[in-house]
This record gives sequence, structure tokens and C-alpha cells, in this order.
Amino acid sequence: MISTKSQVSVVSVDRVKGETCDQVDDLVAVEEPLQIRLQFKQQGQWQEESLAVTMRTPGNDFELAAGFLLAENVITGVDDIHTIRHCHTVKEEEQGNVVIVKLASQVSFDMQNLERHFMTTSSCGVCGKSAIDAITCNHGSLNQKSSQKVDIQTIQRLNDVLEKEQTVFRHTGGLHASALFNFDGELLLLREDIGRHNALDKVVGAALSKNLVPLQNTLVFLSGRVSYELVQKSVQAGIPIIIAVGAPSSLAVELAKEKGITLVGFLRDKRFNVYSHSSRIEKTG
Amino acid sequence: MISTKSQVSVVSVDRVKGETCDQVDDLVAVEEPLQIRLQFKQQGQWQEESLAVTMRTPGNDFELAAGFLLAENVITGVDDIHTIRHCHTVKEEEQGNVVIVKLASQVSFDMQNLERHFMTTSSCGVCGKSAIDAITCNHGSLNQKSSQKVDIQTIQRLNDVLEKEQTVFRHTGGLHASALFNFDGELLLLREDIGRHNALDKVVGAALSKNLVPLQNTLVFLSGRVSYELVQKSVQAGIPIIIAVGAPSSLAVELAKEKGITLVGFLRDKRFNVYSHSSRIEKTG
Repeated sequence: MISTKSQVSVVSVDRVKGETCDQVDDLVAVEEPLQIRLQFKQQGQWQEESLAVTMRTPGNDFELAAGFLLAENVITGVDDIHTIRHCHTVKEEEQGNVVIVKLASQVSFDMQNLERHFMTTSSCGVCGKSAIDAITCNHGSLNQKSSQKVDIQTIQRLNDVLEKEQTVFRHTGGLHASALFNFDGELLLLREDIGRHNALDKVVGAALSKNLVPLQNTLVFLSGRVSYELVQKSVQAGIPIIIAVGAPSSLAVELAKEKGITLVGFLRDKRFNVYSHSSRIEKTG
Repeated sequence: MISTKSQVSVVSVDRVKGETCDQVDDLVAVEEPLQIRLQFKQQGQWQEESLAVTMRTPGNDFELAAGFLLAENVITGVDDIHTIRHCHTVKEEEQGNVVIVKLASQVSFDMQNLERHFMTTSSCGVCGKSAIDAITCNHGSLNQKSSQKVDIQTIQRLNDVLEKEQTVFRHTGGLHASALFNFDGELLLLREDIGRHNALDKVVGAALSKNLVPLQNTLVFLSGRVSYELVQKSVQAGIPIIIAVGAPSSLAVELAKEKGITLVGFLRDKRFNVYSHSSRIEKTG
């Protein structure tokens, strides 16, 4: 039996303010390992391998697994998944922490493909350029001009929308959020996790299960900074616009430019910076 | 020839404020892959393996490699390292991104030991308890009572000290800092990186090269949140006190309690929360 795991945990803390100190109960975000296992057919035989262990906040684990597999190019759509389930043959304390994804039998999978191009050997290239070249985008549409645009005011309102919806973060201060919006600024999906990458995998996995991938005419809002890997995940999901509260890295900017993604950072109050492909943003009025 | 890599990069951005938009130059933190390779003796023969590729901000790469190896329990002190150098037999654009650590010939190393206990197979346990059990601490002193304490005012001043010293972050908003202080609040070492884990590895690696590990009677200041993995790295380095600007996770709190580490979070102005082993903090005056 899978117990429903909590996303927050109560701890007793000594709260210091100036010279005073009180013992109070406080909430912290739960962090626990999740193992993602893959069942796939190889030469007519079903195989099972452990693909990854990620430290995550429990909840939406099937979405996390599906989003992770899309980001790693193991699957290209929801039809590549036969079933996702929890593994029941584990100890009681591990219940809910092991997820098994069974691929559809027509999907070919090679364990070696999972290791990123630049991760395998040094001869494959350990530099920014090779990291960018390693990303193969299944959604060529990112580089095409879309007639649809998002306007400045819509972007400036995103923080307010999120603040109303993001519940666990408010209690713990310890979670990242990823949220999908349409170009009118309507919230489609919101997921939270202790890891920025997990939060994005969860929201993409949720979109995948609703058959919304590739996510044309949507934007993803990230509560933190933007790394190379977060842009990579957006590319794989076909999301044309990334809007973040925090700073992007050099490689995130380069990858966004290369793959046709509009990258916005430092969204605060009415201010933001556009780092790439600003043609998708328009001034109204 | 190794080129000195920059930690910041200039990008052109469209800066939006309200209804206005200006094109300006902005600085972003550089993110590039670093491959850590290990040379070790096995059955009388020297072997070389790639241990990890991490996305990091260039600079202090040898310290990053050394700190990473300590955290992963590959080495227990600076004497276990023979040399650290850049690999020169790589393409021009990869120069500086591949570091080779040669272990001292008496050090035994088994590639399988590197994989974390709970990462290997599900039968090893995928739960918070097994994640904690997997951490073996080489510095039993963490659980012993130290006569030395740090006072509340010293903790409350740490943010101000860091703000003066943390240079790259101020320009980019994109870097994390890890800093070592003594119990009088004097800054010993400061390192910055786009990754929280890298910043801590760098500062521990720097301490290792100065023969300061185990880091008794020091505290580490972290500019962000505290995950399980950051507490693990502190345990391996023998650091008794962690002070963070951000929130800790549930597993970070549990691990700190278990291993005898004083964990402070949410340090802002004159406020902070103590999550474990508050006996190392004292009220003066």
C-alpha cells in the first residue's frame, strides 16, 4: 500500500530575533529520494534498469518521471509510455519512492543514449558548444516565427498570479515553482518541488499526460534562476518562452538563442530583461 | 596552453521597465562543464576514469575537484592527492574544462564505492533513513561537545561581511557563495559558483589545500537553501556549524541532527532559526 507522502514536515526550531529566543514549531519542505526505473524491450526481452535517483519533494511523482524521460529524450510523447506505477516490492519505508515506467513495446531504447553526449568521454567534447550541440530538439517549430505574441503587461502580471497559487512555498520558503501559462496569462499548470529541475519535469510531465506536448503558444514561469539544463528541458518540451524571477547563466542564454527560445530573466515588479528572441514579446496599447 | 576563463560574460539585453524598453549590455555568470577525471592504482597498474561532469563557473577548478573527492569519500585528506592538473590533450575549446586528479599511490579506490549507497540498486534502500545511513563521517568529533561556541551577534553580522566580499554575485545576481568563518566571525575563505554544491566543494577544497580539514571550530555560511547534499558535504569536511540565508529541507535537518551539526537557516537582518544542536550558539552580554 502506498502511503500518501507529505510535502511539508513540522520541526521544532529555536527562533532568534535580536536578543530574544523562542522555541516554536516550523514547517520545512520534505526532501526524499525518488528512484526512476525503466522497463523496456530489447531483442524481444523485457529489461529493467534504474535510470536515476533524484532528491525530490514527494507528490506528482509519475509526472516527474514522465517529464524526466522527455527531457532525456528517452520518450518523445505520451504514446511512448505504456504504464507508470509505484514499485511495491520494496521495504515499507521505501514505499512510494520507487517509480517504474514501462515503455510501449514499439519504443527502442539504448541505455548508452541516456548519458549525455558530453558526459560520456572527454573526446566527445567538454565545452559550452558541445553541450549545446548535444541537445537535439524534436520540435523544430521553436525556430519558426509564430504569429502569436505575448504582451509586456501579461508578463508583468505573472508574479502576482503565482503568489496567489503557490501554497507550499509560502509555508516553507523552501520550494521552487514551475508554471505553464498561455499567452493571455492564464495559468494552465503549476508544480512545486525542492529542486528547480524536478519542478519543471513535473509540470512538463503533467502537460504530457494531458497530451499538450509540444507546448506551442505557452510560456513557462520559473521561480528561480535559469541554468543550461532548464533551457534544455524547455527545448525538449517545445516551450517557446521562458520567464524567470532569477538570473540566467551564460550557457542558458546561448542555448536559448541557438534553439529559438525567448528567455526573460529578473522579472520583478514591472521590470524584466529579455536575453533572446524578443520578437515574441509585444508592447500593447 | 590554458586560457584563463572568465567568470562573467557580457550579453546584450532588452531591459523593460514599465512601458519603456532599452537595449543595454548586462553581465551574466558563466556556466560551463567541468569534467573531473581520476588516476588511481589498481592491482599495480595506473587507471584513469571520468568520475563526474559538473556545470560550474570557471575558476578554482582544482579546489572544486578536491572538495568533490572529499565529499564523495574518495579521499580523506590532502595527503591522498598526488597531483591535480588540467588535461592538455583536449581540443582548444575544451582547454581548462578537464581536470585530472592523480591519487597518491598508497590510496585504494574502487569505482563502485563512488556510487552512493542508495543510488546503486533499490535493494540498498531508497528512503530518507538509508540516505542518512549512507553517510559515513570521518570526523567523529562532530558529535562531541566542543567548549568553543559562537555567539548570536557574530551570526547576525555574517550577512554584512559577505555583502562586502561577494563580488561576482553583485554583478550578475547569478552566483551562490560558500564562506568559511572562524567562531569570532572572521572570514577565512570565500568561493562563488553558479551551483550551490560547487561553491561548497570549492571552499572545502581550498581549506583542504591549506591543510585545515577537518574544519573544527569553523562555520560555513551558505547564500541559499540547505539540501541533504550540502549537509553531507559539511559532514565530510568536519564543519560543525552551517548557517544559511535560505530554508533547509526536511532531510537536511534530519541529517544535521543525526551527525551532530548545528544548522541555522533563514538568516536575515537580526533573525535566524536554529534547527539542530543549538548548544553551540550562545547569548553574550
